Amino acid sequence: MREKGSQHSTWIWYPGDFEIWLGNRFNNRRTERGAMFPPFWKQDSHWPTVLFTKTIHLDEPETIAIATEGCFSLKIDGQLQFGMPSEYTVAAGDHLLELKVWNQASPPALYISGNTIHTDNTWLCTFEDKIWIDENGVAHGSGVYVPAGCWDFNTIGSKPSDFHLPCCRREPVASEKTDKGLLLDFGCETFGYVLLEGINGEGEISLYYGESREEALDPLHCETLDIMPPATYHGTNLRFDSKAFRYICLDIPPTFTVQHIGMDYEESNIMNCDRGEFLCNDKLLNRIWEVCAYTLDLTTREFFMDGIKRDRWTWSGDAIQSYQMNYYHRFDSECVKRTIRQLRGKDPVTAHINTIMDYTFYWFKSVTDYYQYTGDAAFVREIYPRMLTLMDYCLGRTNAEGMAEGQPDDWIFVDWVDFPMHKRGILCFEQILFCKALESMACCARICDDIPTAERFEEKSKDLFEKTRRLFWDESRGAFLHSLEDGQLNGMVTKFPNMFAIIYGYANEHEKATIKQQVMLNDDVPPITTPYMRYYELEALCMMGMQQKVLQEIRDYWGGMLREGATSFWEKYNPQERGTEHLAMYGRPYGKSLCHAWGASPLYLLGKYFLGVRPVKPGYKEFEIRPVLGDLRWMVGSVPIPHGEIQISMNTSTIKVKASHGHGYLYFSSTSIPQASFGQLEPIGENKYRLWIEDKEEYVIKYTNL
Amino acid sequence: MREKGSQHSTWIWYPGDFEIWLGNRFNNRRTERGAMFPPFWKQDSHWPTVLFTKTIHLDEPETIAIATEGCFSLKIDGQLQFGMPSEYTVAAGDHLLELKVWNQASPPALYISGNTIHTDNTWLCTFEDKIWIDENGVAHGSGVYVPAGCWDFNTIGSKPSDFHLPCCRREPVASEKTDKGLLLDFGCETFGYVLLEGINGEGEISLYYGESREEALDPLHCETLDIMPPATYHGTNLRFDSKAFRYICLDIPPTFTVQHIGMDYEESNIMNCDRGEFLCNDKLLNRIWEVCAYTLDLTTREFFMDGIKRDRWTWSGDAIQSYQMNYYHRFDSECVKRTIRQLRGKDPVTAHINTIMDYTFYWFKSVTDYYQYTGDAAFVREIYPRMLTLMDYCLGRTNAEGMAEGQPDDWIFVDWVDFPMHKRGILCFEQILFCKALESMACCARICDDIPTAERFEEKSKDLFEKTRRLFWDESRGAFLHSLEDGQLNGMVTKFPNMFAIIYGYANEHEKATIKQQVMLNDDVPPITTPYMRYYELEALCMMGMQQKVLQEIRDYWGGMLREGATSFWEKYNPQERGTEHLAMYGRPYGKSLCHAWGASPLYLLGKYFLGVRPVKPGYKEFEIRPVLGDLRWMVGSVPIPHGEIQISMNTSTIKVKASHGHGYLYFSSTSIPQASFGQLEPIGENKYRLWIEDKEEYVIKYTNL
Repeated sequence: MREKGSQHSTWIWYPGDFEIWLGNRFNNRRTERGAMFPPFWKQDSHWPTVLFTKTIHLDEPETIAIATEGCFSLKIDGQLQFGMPSEYTVAAGDHLLELKVWNQASPPALYISGNTIHTDNTWLCTFEDKIWIDENGVAHGSGVYVPAGCWDFNTIGSKPSDFHLPCCRREPVASEKTDKGLLLDFGCETFGYVLLEGINGEGEISLYYGESREEALDPLHCETLDIMPPATYHGTNLRFDSKAFRYICLDIPPTFTVQHIGMDYEESNIMNCDRGEFLCNDKLLNRIWEVCAYTLDLTTREFFMDGIKRDRWTWSGDAIQSYQMNYYHRFDSECVKRTIRQLRGKDPVTAHINTIMDYTFYWFKSVTDYYQYTGDAAFVREIYPRMLTLMDYCLGRTNAEGMAEGQPDDWIFVDWVDFPMHKRGILCFEQILFCKALESMACCARICDDIPTAERFEEKSKDLFEKTRRLFWDESRGAFLHSLEDGQLNGMVTKFPNMFAIIYGYANEHEKATIKQQVMLNDDVPPITTPYMRYYELEALCMMGMQQKVLQEIRDYWGGMLREGATSFWEKYNPQERGTEHLAMYGRPYGKSLCHAWGASPLYLLGKYFLGVRPVKPGYKEFEIRPVLGDLRWMVGSVPIPHGEIQISMNTSTIKVKASHGHGYLYFSSTSIPQASFGQLEPIGENKYRLWIEDKEEYVIKYTNL
Repeated sequence: MREKGSQHSTWIWYPGDFEIWLGNRFNNRRTERGAMFPPFWKQDSHWPTVLFTKTIHLDEPETIAIATEGCFSLKIDGQLQFGMPSEYTVAAGDHLLELKVWNQASPPALYISGNTIHTDNTWLCTFEDKIWIDENGVAHGSGVYVPAGCWDFNTIGSKPSDFHLPCCRREPVASEKTDKGLLLDFGCETFGYVLLEGINGEGEISLYYGESREEALDPLHCETLDIMPPATYHGTNLRFDSKAFRYICLDIPPTFTVQHIGMDYEESNIMNCDRGEFLCNDKLLNRIWEVCAYTLDLTTREFFMDGIKRDRWTWSGDAIQSYQMNYYHRFDSECVKRTIRQLRGKDPVTAHINTIMDYTFYWFKSVTDYYQYTGDAAFVREIYPRMLTLMDYCLGRTNAEGMAEGQPDDWIFVDWVDFPMHKRGILCFEQILFCKALESMACCARICDDIPTAERFEEKSKDLFEKTRRLFWDESRGAFLHSLEDGQLNGMVTKFPNMFAIIYGYANEHEKATIKQQVMLNDDVPPITTPYMRYYELEALCMMGMQQKVLQEIRDYWGGMLREGATSFWEKYNPQERGTEHLAMYGRPYGKSLCHAWGASPLYLLGKYFLGVRPVKPGYKEFEIRPVLGDLRWMVGSVPIPHGEIQISMNTSTIKVKASHGHGYLYFSSTSIPQASFGQLEPIGENKYRLWIEDKEEYVIKYTNL
């Protein structure tokens, strides 16, 4: 986000439009065995005509350079100027600048640069200025103006529509001739564009990609491939579309020669270098953290995507996990905003996000999460109108009791489960997500000073949870039950509603305690098998203080993938499976994504529940740090916050913390009376202490771990 | 409109998307003195990703040619096929074809051609197939599919995005060297692209356009111009953007030579030749009819536009008049549909059409008018969902009594008036238009078999007119009064609500009679001064049987413009003005459009109220013919109907009628007992007779004119 009144120019557009346009390019790039594979939900477009405006004062005349993406008109003080000038001299004085830009193919965008006049997010824009003439012949404009959108296209030549992620060269680390063709190994999971340089010969070139060796060597079943029609090549270079792979198998006629084979590896970290860190005495955990970080890097593209090989779409349920991991890794706020905007799309709302009801609810929560981590109220104000209309859609589909009940064309996802689980009727799980969505709505309404709306949604959220508790809480079983279908209670107990009641803070202390014993640690309750929901399960366990158990789960589950040779983490992992069974999913031998964002959850868990850092006030103005070693002997790490980081190191006798910005409490337990290098240690009972941390200083605390 | 199951292929797209895309190109082409001048209302976009689908049966394998505008995927029976094939062989049997096309810059479009497989409007399409997976892992699609849109792009090479109106060459009829440059006269108002061929020289070329000689010779005030930046030309050809003009003044350095100057005159009648005809004993009226026809031709472009020089936008209030004239002239149904679609745009509705409340109401009526003239229920079904959401917008803005009251950002237009007329509060005029809009909504709901909605809107329309009558009808003054503002009745009497109460059929016989005397023929009521509202005023007079008076008005008003040298009819004409006063409007010396669609209203009046033809049942399945000579001695003419025409000739003793399709009554008056060559003449009282006319036969009736 650029600061108000910046002294540099940047390209501007209607907020959200760049993301919607880029999202279409992004989501339509998915292929399946050589066929494009567009999403099955509505894709929107940018506003084709946008008016950009700014009032300025000049002490002296100023010549500005004007560049646009699209045709434009320029008005100074309401007067149309001739043509589409690339330079214009504005006279001294007070002026209203208005530029209306039309572009059908990509978002209308504007760049103006002068001594004092700069396009940035202090400019306003509208998609309809809505002129009307009153009974006295006087013209009025009643368009709704909003701050222009921008990112980091900061030179006149860096047009938004030219955007692409940067690349660097990578070379294969091994090659092998096989009966299927030349097999190349790039050493680990990668994402990018295969390059064939200096091709000579005549015939057909086929490229089979594999996340595994087996996949690359199986032309009939590999998920992605490129087959060039027969042609004659004379020293030709080919660059194929981006794919995810570790291996490629190149099938060319024996008479072909190719001078060089490599790839343009696409880099995702264009805005931020990696900032989150985690290191501990357990080398396996360190390796897991590194591979998680690499997995998240690979799935952080123009947007957060789920898997880089097959899916390559934005999915709201996956994205909210990526956002949360990202807050503990790279703090790439721009990618969070881009993905939130892209997933929401535009009005009218014709379906749930990704067609999935739960995914709509997660989307709402992702906005308040983002606000809590970044403190970026401007973004909330930008997206708030689209929150309102999406919530209207949700409320328009509730049943007579105001509860979220899937309509025939809604996808009720919850999770992929291996046991029979009805998804019709009123699911307790969906109500808990809906409560959080309503609460998020209320929170954002307050940020936007829309108090009546905030109160309305606070009330709704409270009412809904009370109804949910009344309907589904079973005291005898110590659990929230599954659903109500056609007036009949479905008494199945699953972890889903119960763990979300804990994570989202709805369960009271009594409920939490019984849920822990009777659901979360109860072997009779069906186990969770996807990393997607394991994410929440492990979070719930952490929130219940079971960090040791969680560490062991991480070692087993993620360590298990490493033992299978993973260089990035997978869409799903079943320790019972053997060999190529690990590659199959969705009934296809290589259907499983071996690089899937939700596989990287230890990033989030280790940052939030071991280093223990989280924001208490928006944007980390106040934080809290609750470091927990679990069974570790020591750990050091840092968690990114806006404009800085919080560094923590801890062993069994010393805790060190240093925050570059903000302040807040450090909480820890000690069996001895601790000592701090600064500040006032406060005992808060049961061997617990807290210490108020101010920014910039390193605090060193001597203590004795439990 | 293509017939169901046609044996030829045509390009298809999501219905309405071509028009919305073309409309943006059209409306953004307006310029003002070299600056582009985009509209001030929201412009929408096509859906960027559209799925086209059709179930087929093949007796034998069939190879199809596939062309698209955009990238695409092909699924046969749910199976993705490799790449983007331009040819594909479909096996014998039953199949589901699915092609999903993505195109950001222009509407995704598809053309498939085989022996039996043809893209046409029997294909279905959707902008979201909305796949979702149930608890048993079964995928479902719940997208809303609608018949694909198409027009007449009937070859694989005629891509919709290449569309442009055809042109033919026209040459200037006179040229003259002036101190402003070379002045060329093209003989009459034209619209097209000026061509300069074989230019040699170095410097700046300036072109000043004039609908009048004065305008072309006034470089500082002419409304449109082209100034080329300094350049060197070596036998160069230039083609300037389309403009409206009769004169051009070419300002080039004296050293320049230009081999040839002409124009590409843009032809509007690409679908239909002219079919309406009118000829009578009055040569002035014949000339008026011809110039009206030329005026309507010039303003019929990709869409019906208001004026060809300055405005060049689609305006709903102007367009409904063009549609009505068109039904009596060229019956270009495609242009009507295109304009209706384009004006409506897409959801969400954020403003009234063209920002004007009255224009929204006219838009609703235009749909039922179109249905009545063409019988095209498919179009009603296509546009019906957008009627519903637009009506939701209107209903969401009514006051507590359910009446249409302008909100602060609504433009309440009514008409340009020279007398003080308040436009705030509840205007009687707007209620009458709103009644008609509600009635149109009900009518279309019935066509779409949406009976509860039909009944709801019938009720609403009835209630609203009763309220309106109760509030505004003043028995003592024999008129509907102007408005209610802040609870105070504004007792001004204008022609506006009163003539619409007659035209729209809401006034009862008593009201009609008093309105006629106390409003329409009352010199104390402020006169109407725009051709826009004169259109309705003259129609009301015709409906009250005052054809003779109307003929005289036509001779005076339109004849007056001809006497001033008009070659097309104007935006406004005040017989009191002299010389260049006729050219000025909006405070600009050449601000008036000298070719304005609403200037062509005699086309409609002569066809509907003199030839007397109108549809009784949709699409002229039943018609009525009520020919009226007024003060004419004879008239002959024809009125277009779907797939044919109705021919009428009449003098004071003989009436001849012949209909190529349909049937209906001929009504006429005769002081003698008439005789008919066919059929059964029925006296219906007061010297009136009727005769049932069947198609194909010419009926000759001997009678005696009153």
